[in-house]
Amino acid sequence: MPKTEIQNRNPDHLQAAKSAILVIGGAEDKVYGKEILSSFFQFSGGNEAVIGIIPSASREPSLIGERYYRIFADMGAQKIKVLDIRDRDQASAQEHLDFIEGCTGIFLTGGDQLRLCALLADTPVIKRILARVRAKEIALAGTSAGAAVMGYQMIAGGSSGECPNRDLVDLDFGLGIIPGVLVDQHFYNRNRLARLLSAISAFPQLLGIGIDEDTCAMFSDDDRITVLGKGTLTILDAQAITHTNYPQVTASEPIKIHNLKLHLLSHGDVYDWQKRQLVN
Amino acid sequence: MPKTEIQNRNPDHLQAAKSAILVIGGAEDKVYGKEILSSFFQFSGGNEAVIGIIPSASREPSLIGERYYRIFADMGAQKIKVLDIRDRDQASAQEHLDFIEGCTGIFLTGGDQLRLCALLADTPVIKRILARVRAKEIALAGTSAGAAVMGYQMIAGGSSGECPNRDLVDLDFGLGIIPGVLVDQHFYNRNRLARLLSAISAFPQLLGIGIDEDTCAMFSDDDRITVLGKGTLTILDAQAITHTNYPQVTASEPIKIHNLKLHLLSHGDVYDWQKRQLVN
Repeated sequence: MPKTEIQNRNPDHLQAAKSAILVIGGAEDKVYGKEILSSFFQFSGGNEAVIGIIPSASREPSLIGERYYRIFADMGAQKIKVLDIRDRDQASAQEHLDFIEGCTGIFLTGGDQLRLCALLADTPVIKRILARVRAKEIALAGTSAGAAVMGYQMIAGGSSGECPNRDLVDLDFGLGIIPGVLVDQHFYNRNRLARLLSAISAFPQLLGIGIDEDTCAMFSDDDRITVLGKGTLTILDAQAITHTNYPQVTASEPIKIHNLKLHLLSHGDVYDWQKRQLVN
Repeated sequence: MPKTEIQNRNPDHLQAAKSAILVIGGAEDKVYGKEILSSFFQFSGGNEAVIGIIPSASREPSLIGERYYRIFADMGAQKIKVLDIRDRDQASAQEHLDFIEGCTGIFLTGGDQLRLCALLADTPVIKRILARVRAKEIALAGTSAGAAVMGYQMIAGGSSGECPNRDLVDLDFGLGIIPGVLVDQHFYNRNRLARLLSAISAFPQLLGIGIDEDTCAMFSDDDRITVLGKGTLTILDAQAITHTNYPQVTASEPIKIHNLKLHLLSHGDVYDWQKRQLVN
């Protein structure tokens, strides 16, 4: 959809927030309205945007890097660079650090979240990106695997078709970009509610966030999450649960959780994730 | 498992309740411990049980009727009869009504819940069964399609792999055996949480109950649900939701629900479904 239309649909949040982290559930629209990618482009400065694309989650980094390069070029970004980091040495390269210093937005593509973490965790490149994101100097977006790495705790894999149980989900360490959240993506598309329930029982203090394809949880600098895109944002709030059998439960036994709060949010909904309540 | 072992595991609820409705998520154990079927057998009077099997949901009623006949015969029931109702005329047959008058338990097999309702709804046979169940004179069990028909509102079909939306679930009228509930079965096995969320948004006053395979929600005469079997009983309590976009939401748009309560229960958990709270 044209930029003006997006602004008409979401005038408040797009203008109020100065910086944002866009956590995208994968398969975001790249052809038609491109609502989510356009929002990232706007947060990165629009025609003045200097965007770095990190395709390291993918096994075809050239191909996927090029695809996003084209999209942001077509939108009119001032400068774009694919930071094609394929080993940990490259995640210290001065040329990348120099680019990050001058950029206004960083985009993490999809692929394999374990690969992305293996290449980036604790490297100068990700440390500098994190520092600039936390200083609210740049926008950040991650889609699919790039969304999965947002928390300190990460869902690395798992399956479906079973009741919530410890074997249903593989947990690992993420990049810790947004502390306090546990993200899953391709959410209803791949029937992942049972695995997020399993994961959140292990970390009930974290906010569970399940993001559908072509859907975005936009974290802005006022502690708010605004939903963009076509699908559902599912929030699991385990802060007030009265009982769980985790961690005593054995690997394949059903996990018990009593009194979990669940929200189904979609386009335009706003949630305060520090106060843990709906804003509108 | 042997009868004595079941009694050791669940002494309280099996002895305290005088009658029960066993709502089974399908694919219950028919070979090894048979915990769920044994519980139904005990509630029907054990060695004095007179059990009627209604296989009408199935397109192979002889086969499935025979299978349950064998199981209850092996357990030692005093008398068993397959009420092989294949058209609505047979659902008024005096021989069936006479049997129901003297029976202690009725078992509804799996198959197609629409077929079962088409054959039984508002017939003398189901009316007499309901009257005797409500008078707490007999035990009742239904598995799979036989579980789906328990509420006044019934999930007749649906799919998965999409966010909760109106198109994801087909709703119809059930047999109204347990007013106030909306049942889904083969629950996590077939990834049905999104469709139950969709259904409960249409009827937020009902208690949503998702039952896994080889798992049973046992409704006893003290307003309690006790969980038997190996899987999870998922309870969706929408009584205190603060917002939903149903029914304004169009057929394929994401359904919004704010502040839904969710419980994951399993073996031994007890829930008071009138007070809507966990008992232990």
